[in-house]
Amino acid sequence: MTAAEIKFIKKLHQKKYRKEEQKYFVEGRKLYEEALKNCPDLIESVYYTKSEDQPENQKNSELISEKEMSRISALKNPSPFLVLLKMSPLNLTNSNRSLFLEDIKDPGNMGTIIRSADWFGIEKIYVSSECVDLYNPKVIQATMGSFFRVNFEETTATELASQSIPLYGATLDGESIHTIEFPDEVCLVIGNESKGIQENTAELLTRKIFIPGKGKAESLNASVAAGIVLFAMNR
Amino acid sequence: MTAAEIKFIKKLHQKKYRKEEQKYFVEGRKLYEEALKNCPDLIESVYYTKSEDQPENQKNSELISEKEMSRISALKNPSPFLVLLKMSPLNLTNSNRSLFLEDIKDPGNMGTIIRSADWFGIEKIYVSSECVDLYNPKVIQATMGSFFRVNFEETTATELASQSIPLYGATLDGESIHTIEFPDEVCLVIGNESKGIQENTAELLTRKIFIPGKGKAESLNASVAAGIVLFAMNR
Repeated sequence: MTAAEIKFIKKLHQKKYRKEEQKYFVEGRKLYEEALKNCPDLIESVYYTKSEDQPENQKNSELISEKEMSRISALKNPSPFLVLLKMSPLNLTNSNRSLFLEDIKDPGNMGTIIRSADWFGIEKIYVSSECVDLYNPKVIQATMGSFFRVNFEETTATELASQSIPLYGATLDGESIHTIEFPDEVCLVIGNESKGIQENTAELLTRKIFIPGKGKAESLNASVAAGIVLFAMNR
Repeated sequence: MTAAEIKFIKKLHQKKYRKEEQKYFVEGRKLYEEALKNCPDLIESVYYTKSEDQPENQKNSELISEKEMSRISALKNPSPFLVLLKMSPLNLTNSNRSLFLEDIKDPGNMGTIIRSADWFGIEKIYVSSECVDLYNPKVIQATMGSFFRVNFEETTATELASQSIPLYGATLDGESIHTIEFPDEVCLVIGNESKGIQENTAELLTRKIFIPGKGKAESLNASVAAGIVLFAMNR
């Protein structure tokens, strides 16, 4: 591994350079296997630390030392695999159902929502510009591979509303989700962890939905709320 | 703040000493307010860094320096409040519905599940001995105050089954949750993040339930699955 390669991957720890280079990396055998299964053409190179792990028929794979791996890894305990990929939309059928995530800041929440979306067959996720970067290694890790089965697009609620896509938003003052029927074409809006959906966005919603509770908690975690709405949409 | 007090709270960063002393701490104004609302008698002392924050009518409250706070805090960015509490069961009405968490390891998942339980009115959570410590500061932070509205008890699935409590478990091979009716008395079993419910425990389940998906994800995040089952139980 050359000093220039090490420097290049270390730069990709920062969002700015990921965007500039249109490249990112993922770590761990599981994510490598998922990338291989879902988007092999986007893999640029694979670094691994154990000779017995050498990937078969993989162009640009390179055995590196554990010391080198710890220099390029974003993990406290580096895994034996690091995969460099190029950013590019995936080849997916367009379903009529999508998510719009507004200002989701926590990488764990973001990754978990992507994983739930994949579980419930949503292939398109719109994100606001204030969301945590999708290519943040913590986001990708939390998706457990679902990252490679969903397409992303940065947009605004105004733009979505102008396309006449019905927007259903999870709020604290909507109709009970138990009685709502979801149309075939719908975009679910999930708001920020602490502030919920922005006022401007709330005015654009076709319907506000609410998850009724019984206890005294003020709200649900954003990724739990998203999971419940996705579940209800699939009843 | 005396050196002995600083040393005492620093010791409480470790599970071992929390257990030995039967004391723990929480940080942040929000958690202090929740403790005040839900279990004022369990508050032993309150440390705060800004004189304008002095709590009214609070015994044992002490203004300390930011330097002292950073020594006793478990947070990267210490908050202006740290509250010392004693461990003790809360005075709650016993509902017939409960959760059994088996080997939940991630503090964020544990805290999020407690928050969802509170949202859906569950006041009793059983935990296996292999779960992350409930008094771990990251767990408490993730509950967003719900920690003070739920009682906990360490137990085993065998013990619960011997009390004839119907155990419903979220598995990958159960009946679809869409058609399941939940009895008035039921304990929901949520398994470990990566291994799911243990085989021995699965044999004790009254009913296995499954959350049907559409996509290619292998599973849902444990706290999302718990949230969905709690939601379905409240339809």
